[in-house]
Amino acid sequence: MKIKNVCILGAGTLGSRVALQAALSGYKVRIYDINPTALENSKKTMAKIIDQLAKGTGLEESAGMNAIDGIVFTDNATNAVMDADLINESVLEDIQVKNQVWEMFGQIAPEKTIFTTNTSFLLPSMFAEISGRPAKFCALHFHDVFYSKVVDIMPHPGTDPDLVPLLEEFGRSLEQVPVTVKKENHGYIFNSMLMAFIGAAGKLLTKEIASIEDIDKSWMVNFHMPMGPFGILDSIGLDTAWHVTKSQPDAASQKFAALLKTYIEAGKLGEKSGEGFYKYPKPEYRNSGFIS
Amino acid sequence: MKIKNVCILGAGTLGSRVALQAALSGYKVRIYDINPTALENSKKTMAKIIDQLAKGTGLEESAGMNAIDGIVFTDNATNAVMDADLINESVLEDIQVKNQVWEMFGQIAPEKTIFTTNTSFLLPSMFAEISGRPAKFCALHFHDVFYSKVVDIMPHPGTDPDLVPLLEEFGRSLEQVPVTVKKENHGYIFNSMLMAFIGAAGKLLTKEIASIEDIDKSWMVNFHMPMGPFGILDSIGLDTAWHVTKSQPDAASQKFAALLKTYIEAGKLGEKSGEGFYKYPKPEYRNSGFIS
Repeated sequence: MKIKNVCILGAGTLGSRVALQAALSGYKVRIYDINPTALENSKKTMAKIIDQLAKGTGLEESAGMNAIDGIVFTDNATNAVMDADLINESVLEDIQVKNQVWEMFGQIAPEKTIFTTNTSFLLPSMFAEISGRPAKFCALHFHDVFYSKVVDIMPHPGTDPDLVPLLEEFGRSLEQVPVTVKKENHGYIFNSMLMAFIGAAGKLLTKEIASIEDIDKSWMVNFHMPMGPFGILDSIGLDTAWHVTKSQPDAASQKFAALLKTYIEAGKLGEKSGEGFYKYPKPEYRNSGFIS
Repeated sequence: MKIKNVCILGAGTLGSRVALQAALSGYKVRIYDINPTALENSKKTMAKIIDQLAKGTGLEESAGMNAIDGIVFTDNATNAVMDADLINESVLEDIQVKNQVWEMFGQIAPEKTIFTTNTSFLLPSMFAEISGRPAKFCALHFHDVFYSKVVDIMPHPGTDPDLVPLLEEFGRSLEQVPVTVKKENHGYIFNSMLMAFIGAAGKLLTKEIASIEDIDKSWMVNFHMPMGPFGILDSIGLDTAWHVTKSQPDAASQKFAALLKTYIEAGKLGEKSGEGFYKYPKPEYRNSGFIS
């Protein structure tokens, strides 16, 4: 089959980005959210991204705005899924919410529709059955679409194997690098590695082996990267990082989770709250003198 | 005190690089090795580095060659340490060899000489006492000097605290970013994080969650880096990685160490042997089509 019509469920940050890239890549896109304000904000977010892309990559602003104009923003589920070849779901990372959404769309989606979820830490097998079409159900997980252009394709044990190459091709058509997660794994591929090195950084800090700044410098200078683990944590959000860290049973993770909690209780959630391990909008690690 | 005369012990890869950078930074440098052939090779290695720096960074070739001409290459220990303000030791990563070297230089070095070790995975407290001057003994660990410009300063419990700022300043004068390891830690700062994410990559592979290529792609594309964990392992050397991995007690590390051993037994040690996880000199991950 040929994918032409794409339906995005959830008009948050990631849903908006996937919808926009799909429209830019020539797909007919409908984006659904129960909250009309979320849909309005989504359209504004997309316009900002087009503005940045026009400055950064030379994308023509008019082509970008035309892509947005072609997207249908709707809070009507039946309208959203009309004629959809593929759904990509980015609703709240809550198993009950996802179950409700998939139960409903399993009933109203056309028979041809492929179901994909963008879940970050849950597994496709958790919603595949309730959707009513487990063989057509697969995780299709984008990172941030425009900077980190990876898409994880993670089938559950009941996924039709033919779906994988089709989704790889779809990922490539959205200018992403597709990678296949052969068995269900919390955190796919990259997040497993990310959380491992961030956990090691947390251990260096809680064991008082090195300072936040020196840990970040070591990473940045060795790998020629613009930020280190604590800068990355600030961009992920300390609340999100705390949820993941506290779910690890080992003593070092528990100790780091306890430290993260002190930041969260002080209102320091990272870049989004203006302060985390560093202060924003001008964190110390972006000063030219930091690495010297 | 002001450091002017630097003595490098061991004319291997790292010793040669530190000696060359010290000479380029204006220090009087003597480099010692018991093996005259190692000293000849060291001089050749330095000339190659100058050639690369001249092409890559615009260093004047004549200035670089003058720096090499100013270095004293010697297999005479007394001559090597004559008037040295600081020793940086990069001999074989073997505790008995390091003990012998430090016992000898503790006896023949001038009283003023600061003792520093470049050990990768051992700890300064293991040789501090035998050197006869534990208060003047500290780890000063370079990464590769010219690409990863980090230097770790790691005192042991008996190190004079005044030594730390002096070594930070010395590190900066060699164009390195100094970071302080406040307590002795195997692997300093960066290697702790490196081994953690490489261990996570190994676990993804041994659990058959993803392929070598897809794991590397995830890392490279998300972090905009030129290689992923398996490319990095090839450049570290699979034998070195095996030594570190097998020393970790957890089941996942043991399983990955066993996999690394199958490569080593097949003669696949990484880039240096022509093959590891990839084949060299043209590994797949350097093809422009790899990330697509």
